Amino acid sequence: MSKSSGNISEIVIRRMPVYYRYLQELIDSGVERISSKDLSAITGYSASQIRQDLNNFGGFGQQGYGYNTIDLKDQIEKILGIDKSYNTIVIGAGRLGQAIARYKGFRNSGFNVISLFDIKDGIDDISGIKVRKMEDLENYIEEEKVEVAIITVPREACEDVAKRAIDAGVRGIWNFAPYDLEAPSGVVVENIRLNDSLLTLSYFMKNL
Amino acid sequence: MSKSSGNISEIVIRRMPVYYRYLQELIDSGVERISSKDLSAITGYSASQIRQDLNNFGGFGQQGYGYNTIDLKDQIEKILGIDKSYNTIVIGAGRLGQAIARYKGFRNSGFNVISLFDIKDGIDDISGIKVRKMEDLENYIEEEKVEVAIITVPREACEDVAKRAIDAGVRGIWNFAPYDLEAPSGVVVENIRLNDSLLTLSYFMKNL
Repeated sequence: MSKSSGNISEIVIRRMPVYYRYLQELIDSGVERISSKDLSAITGYSASQIRQDLNNFGGFGQQGYGYNTIDLKDQIEKILGIDKSYNTIVIGAGRLGQAIARYKGFRNSGFNVISLFDIKDGIDDISGIKVRKMEDLENYIEEEKVEVAIITVPREACEDVAKRAIDAGVRGIWNFAPYDLEAPSGVVVENIRLNDSLLTLSYFMKNL
Repeated sequence: MSKSSGNISEIVIRRMPVYYRYLQELIDSGVERISSKDLSAITGYSASQIRQDLNNFGGFGQQGYGYNTIDLKDQIEKILGIDKSYNTIVIGAGRLGQAIARYKGFRNSGFNVISLFDIKDGIDDISGIKVRKMEDLENYIEEEKVEVAIITVPREACEDVAKRAIDAGVRGIWNFAPYDLEAPSGVVVENIRLNDSLLTLSYFMKNL
């Protein structure tokens, strides 16, 4: 169930997008430098945790100065690979698939949705992006060098479409179906688990 | 950043929906009982971890027998509060809000979407659910005893609409905006953080 990358644990890696997001907000507000103490107050992680996390990648602060927000954001951008760009498809062109295909925030992270796929025929283009038939999936992935597939099909279909995409060359799967896809070697899977999150909300509401 | 409930840590609570999901699949496949060892093979958590997790809520297994899948699922259903039902609204009737309002899986978990809200006027009903104007938000929450708000507005608007919903009586927020909402006392917030997940995918793909 867990991934790792070199000696860096998944839990550290999952905090990097959080730092990235807060740094972006600080930069947007005109903040040029920040201490790990202030970063701690904003993120909720302890200052020593933050220093430790960043030291995994070389550390970017300076004693007595703290972090330069723009420099640190640029470094984390490189760490996260946001400077790269991936040809991405969405499999499942229902409402959720359409919402994702249209969302500009994902494009800014380097995931360019270049096509959608659906078992239904004749779905209109989504913001100028073509919806193709499932039988064209493998050919399209090979020809367009698609590296990432976002899966928004029902649970019953998700394992099958993921296998087809991976066999055709996809290396990254972002899965919204309520089913834990396992990643074969050389492939990365992020399972979103919206239902699990909702059940956790339910638990905490019951126990308020 | 972390919630807790009595002495049970959030990390344990977040595993309960996973057990629940796998038990549902086992039951659907006709499996009546399962050992913690076999449950470990399916979920990826260790057998002792599973026993420990369930012991937090009283333990439901029997030595030498394992767990009755239906009994255990029923127990977890009660633990998670799925036997309860909540009047729920979606704030933000864009593609994502519409996808969520239509998704039957959430309804099965006890979250009944009874209305959507949007700043735009004149959006058609979504599968028979009315889209209302934002100025009616507070009155509607009070009159219909709305307990949960699902937020799918842009980042800039999310803090403001959450505050309005909470002030009017909402106790649970499921937030899809890329912004960490903090929960005031007596309110539960689940931040979904889709962007963070995508950046994690990006990291692992870069480091494949």
